[in-house]
Amino acid sequence: MGEVSADAVTLDMLREARETVRSSPLGVIDTPMIAWSQTTLPLSISCNIHIKLENMQRTGSFKIRGVANQFARRPAGGRFVTMSAGNYGKSFAYALKHFGSKGKVVMPETAPENRSILIQEDNMTFLHSYNDLDLIAGHASLGMEVLEVMPEPDVVVVCCGGGGLLAGVAAAIKLSGCSETKIYGVEPEGACTMYKSLIEKKPVGMDSKSIASGLAPPFAGRLPYELCQRYVEGIVLVSDEEIEAAVSTLYRSGLVVEPSGSAAFAAIVNNKIPELEGKDVVCILTGGNIGKAELMNFQD
Amino acid sequence: MGEVSADAVTLDMLREARETVRSSPLGVIDTPMIAWSQTTLPLSISCNIHIKLENMQRTGSFKIRGVANQFARRPAGGRFVTMSAGNYGKSFAYALKHFGSKGKVVMPETAPENRSILIQEDNMTFLHSYNDLDLIAGHASLGMEVLEVMPEPDVVVVCCGGGGLLAGVAAAIKLSGCSETKIYGVEPEGACTMYKSLIEKKPVGMDSKSIASGLAPPFAGRLPYELCQRYVEGIVLVSDEEIEAAVSTLYRSGLVVEPSGSAAFAAIVNNKIPELEGKDVVCILTGGNIGKAELMNFQD
Repeated sequence: MGEVSADAVTLDMLREARETVRSSPLGVIDTPMIAWSQTTLPLSISCNIHIKLENMQRTGSFKIRGVANQFARRPAGGRFVTMSAGNYGKSFAYALKHFGSKGKVVMPETAPENRSILIQEDNMTFLHSYNDLDLIAGHASLGMEVLEVMPEPDVVVVCCGGGGLLAGVAAAIKLSGCSETKIYGVEPEGACTMYKSLIEKKPVGMDSKSIASGLAPPFAGRLPYELCQRYVEGIVLVSDEEIEAAVSTLYRSGLVVEPSGSAAFAAIVNNKIPELEGKDVVCILTGGNIGKAELMNFQD
Repeated sequence: MGEVSADAVTLDMLREARETVRSSPLGVIDTPMIAWSQTTLPLSISCNIHIKLENMQRTGSFKIRGVANQFARRPAGGRFVTMSAGNYGKSFAYALKHFGSKGKVVMPETAPENRSILIQEDNMTFLHSYNDLDLIAGHASLGMEVLEVMPEPDVVVVCCGGGGLLAGVAAAIKLSGCSETKIYGVEPEGACTMYKSLIEKKPVGMDSKSIASGLAPPFAGRLPYELCQRYVEGIVLVSDEEIEAAVSTLYRSGLVVEPSGSAAFAAIVNNKIPELEGKDVVCILTGGNIGKAELMNFQD
């Protein structure tokens, strides 16, 4: 993707991406946002939580938003390759199939050392799963949608893996003029690359490990890092146990949410986010791709 | 409950019950109703399906609505008993605990022959889980809520066990003046007491058996039967396999819905409901109380 800087992300550009995503032939959904008080379980937090049900999104996660914009801005008939064993790969494959494009999804275990060779040989375009301007602009549509329903949220909580979603949502909200809105990213304790990057003031990597595999890439993306540094109030950490418990709480409330998709909720209910008292808090539930067998392993 | 007739159910009475349920200290939730187009999976039906998420209701099912009205209309400090191994028992127990009342929930396997003795001995009031005027009036609040969001639905589809919910929702909608709205009940093929009752023109029983245990009582309630005869267009039947598949489809769409709660959805997606083309169709997802272990037994 070259050396795109955070300055490339403007409100006009995000508005254009919002329209591209909204009218995408991939059928990206304007997912429901509902008050937590409309669900089964009372919580011991005195704030108004609004959950954005991205677990009901096409392909089961928010990734289709960024993919819709990536594909819209590449030449038709191109050949694409990516590396992902998770939600990005699922959305990427969905897009390939829909557009009848040629392409490959390479699984991370076998890919790293062969990636450049593979691309050269087949003359394919590599699409990155989080460190990509068009992807981030597509993800930003989620932030725009939140503001359409709630023009000035007090707090927005978003999980963070490579940081593409967090960066996009934060940029969308801050560039739209919500300067008072506090935006927090949530990472697993064992996979806190963005947390470390913000401390070290450069994108860093680590030997990431978490039950929330979608939040555990080995490096923070450079562009997401720059955008988070500019637009995000802070990163908070949750343990794998807290994530597991959040998955179970959401299940008992009638919602299928994967571990990665439950991290923001886990941070809120475990009081990791500062100053929530009496506030309007938006919690993004980012994905619902969890098999029944995996779910069975979780405590009730 | 004596010989209450369908004439006892009036619009004024349902409006009063609606307010009782809305302001109940049990915290009954005005559950979200969302367009199916806001979920993951496209369906091959060309109508606008709106799902009412009663799986997110307090105690995990609609039964708390009727229970809230039953308890509100009995003397405080009373002693109550009921017979239920399912969602009614769960809501009943929740109400007992909340009000600090004495009471018992007797499991069906051991109860039938001892029921009258038990009540006499302990001077307890028996509350019925479906054949009860106050319960039905409380359930009717669900129909009222639907009309607040969608004043004139074309079709409303509701599952039917003993018939209390179907009767209440149908009465609420028809008595509110929606004479053009078609209301359909859905029963499992192996537990179709209301279907048989409407044919035989009296409430009948059968040796009910279904994976949707909440829809498989041995008898149709007399009062529900009378109300269904008056206000419901027809009963359609679904197989256990169709119910299982509906549970799995809803799971993949991010929603935890139990087999009984999925019957109405199963009827719609399997084209059991007549003349849906282009219509606004309300589908009630009545409950989400399904354990992970039970879910595991279902095909993907």
